Amino acid sequence: MTQIQAEPRRHSPALRFPPQGDWPTFAPGLVWLVGAGPGDPGLLTLHGLNALVQANHVVYDALANPAVLDWCSPGATLEFAGKRGGRPSPEQRDITLRLIELAKSGAKVLRLKGGDPFTFGRGGEEALMLTRAGVPIRITPGITAGIGGLAYAGIPVTHRDFNRSVTFVTGHDVSGDGANALDWSALSKGSQVIVLYMATKWFRAIAKKFLATGRDPGEPVAIVSRATTPDQVVVVSKLKRAADDMEKLRIQPPSIVCVGRNVLLRHEIEWVSHFDGYENECASATTVRS
Amino acid sequence: MTQIQAEPRRHSPALRFPPQGDWPTFAPGLVWLVGAGPGDPGLLTLHGLNALVQANHVVYDALANPAVLDWCSPGATLEFAGKRGGRPSPEQRDITLRLIELAKSGAKVLRLKGGDPFTFGRGGEEALMLTRAGVPIRITPGITAGIGGLAYAGIPVTHRDFNRSVTFVTGHDVSGDGANALDWSALSKGSQVIVLYMATKWFRAIAKKFLATGRDPGEPVAIVSRATTPDQVVVVSKLKRAADDMEKLRIQPPSIVCVGRNVLLRHEIEWVSHFDGYENECASATTVRS
Repeated sequence: MTQIQAEPRRHSPALRFPPQGDWPTFAPGLVWLVGAGPGDPGLLTLHGLNALVQANHVVYDALANPAVLDWCSPGATLEFAGKRGGRPSPEQRDITLRLIELAKSGAKVLRLKGGDPFTFGRGGEEALMLTRAGVPIRITPGITAGIGGLAYAGIPVTHRDFNRSVTFVTGHDVSGDGANALDWSALSKGSQVIVLYMATKWFRAIAKKFLATGRDPGEPVAIVSRATTPDQVVVVSKLKRAADDMEKLRIQPPSIVCVGRNVLLRHEIEWVSHFDGYENECASATTVRS
Repeated sequence: MTQIQAEPRRHSPALRFPPQGDWPTFAPGLVWLVGAGPGDPGLLTLHGLNALVQANHVVYDALANPAVLDWCSPGATLEFAGKRGGRPSPEQRDITLRLIELAKSGAKVLRLKGGDPFTFGRGGEEALMLTRAGVPIRITPGITAGIGGLAYAGIPVTHRDFNRSVTFVTGHDVSGDGANALDWSALSKGSQVIVLYMATKWFRAIAKKFLATGRDPGEPVAIVSRATTPDQVVVVSKLKRAADDMEKLRIQPPSIVCVGRNVLLRHEIEWVSHFDGYENECASATTVRS
C-alpha cells in the first residue's frame, strides 16, 4: 500500500449535529444505555453522540474512552463507575441501583459503557434490573472490540476463503465448572475463527485446550491490546507460543485475541500505520511477527 | 416498563459536526470502506458521517440505508452497487475494479456497506484487491446486525446467566461441501447462543442439524427481519417450529436468526415499542409468541 499524502487536521465541514432527520430527545427519568465502542472516539455512533449532548448525568465505565465526555452538555454531571487508583470497582448491583436512583429523581441518565453493552458488557443485567424497577430504558449498541478492534489491526473477522463462522468467547474464567461451562473441544472444532475477550490471563490454558482438540500449533494468532487507541499494540504469533509472547511482551489489558487464518490478511490489509495524520490515534501499533 | 412521555422531535443541540477533536480528512485517491450499520441511520459512526460529508463519490450497497446519503456533500456522485429492479447485482470483482478506477482518477471514494464490512460483508476481499492494486484504504467498522439488530429486539447476544460464548454463522450455504464446510455438530455444541446471518432460506436444514446434535426442540429462537428499520419484525418461536413460522409469516430478508435462551430476555428488555416518538423507526415490530 502506498503512503498517502499528509492530511490536514481538524477538518470542519459545515454541518450541524445531529444532521437532518428525526432524532430522539432524551426524556427525564430515562436511562439510555450506550456502547462507546472500543476506544477511538470516532467509533461512537450518532445516537451515542446525540445521547451525550443531551444527558445531564453520565455514569461511565473504565472501558469507555473519557475523551468523548468532552462532548457532554456543559452542565452534565460525570460519574465514574470503575476501578481506579487501586480502589475496588463498585459492584455491578450497586451501579445499577445508582442508575435507578438517578432516573427516579428525574435525571436524564446516560450509562456509557466501553464496546457494545450486550457483548460481554453486562448490559443485559443492567437492562433487566432497570426495567424490573420500572425505569424506562433505551439501548444504543456500540462497535465491539472483537470486530472493530480487529479491523484496526487489519484483520477481518470473516473472510470467504477462510471462515463461515466466528465464535466470540470470554476467556475470563476457563476453570470449566458451573452450569455454563464451555465445551472447549466442540467450540474449537465448530469455528474456524475464534475471538477471545478478556483472555490475557487465561490464554495459556485456552491454547492448551485448542491444541488438544487438534488445532494446528502453527495456526496464526493475533493479540490486539488497547485496540483503536493511541496505545494499540498488535502482536502476531502462533498458537503454540502466543501465551509466551503475551507474557514476554507484557501485553496490557484490555486485549482481544484472535485465533484463525484470517490473521494472515493483516499482512496486506493493515491500514492504520499508513496514515500520516493518524499518530494521535493508532500510530504506536507494532507487530512482532513470528 | 412504563410508557415514557411523548418526545418532541428534531431536537437540535448547538453542536457542530464533527465535534471537538482531531478528525481525518479524506485524501483524494483513498477508498474509505465504511460500515453503515444495520439500518437505523443513528447507528452510523462519527467516522462514518465524517467520511460521508467529505466524499465526492459514494458507492453504496443494497444493505446500506440510503437515508444516510442525505448527509453527503451536495456535489457528491452516488452510485448504487446492488440488485435492483430484477437486474442482477454487479459481481464483487466488478465493484472492486470500479473502486480502483475511481481512486486512481483521484476521487475521494466512500464505499458504504450495510452492517459491518468485515462481518460476512466481503469487505476483506475488497480491501485485499484494493491494496494489491496500490490503492490506499481506510476502514471504519459498523454495527453488525447480529449484535445491534438483536439489541433493537431486546435480545443481548451475551448474558452472564446463559452464555460465555456466541457464534455468528452465515446460513447462506448449508450444503456442507467444500474446504470450508462447517462442522455443524461441533458448532451447535460449542456455543450456547448461535446467531445466523442470511439464514431465511436455509434455516429448516440448519435447525434439523441442531436438533440432531441434541439441542432442545423447545429452545427459544428469535427471527429479526429488517432489524432497526421502520419495517423491523421480530418473531419469537422455538427451534422445532421456527422454520414453519418463518414460512407462514413470510419473513423478509435481510433477517437475523438467534438460537438460545437469551431470546427469553426480550420479554423484559424490549424497549423499542415503548417510545412514543419512535414510530417512524421501529414501531411495527411485532411478536408472535410461542
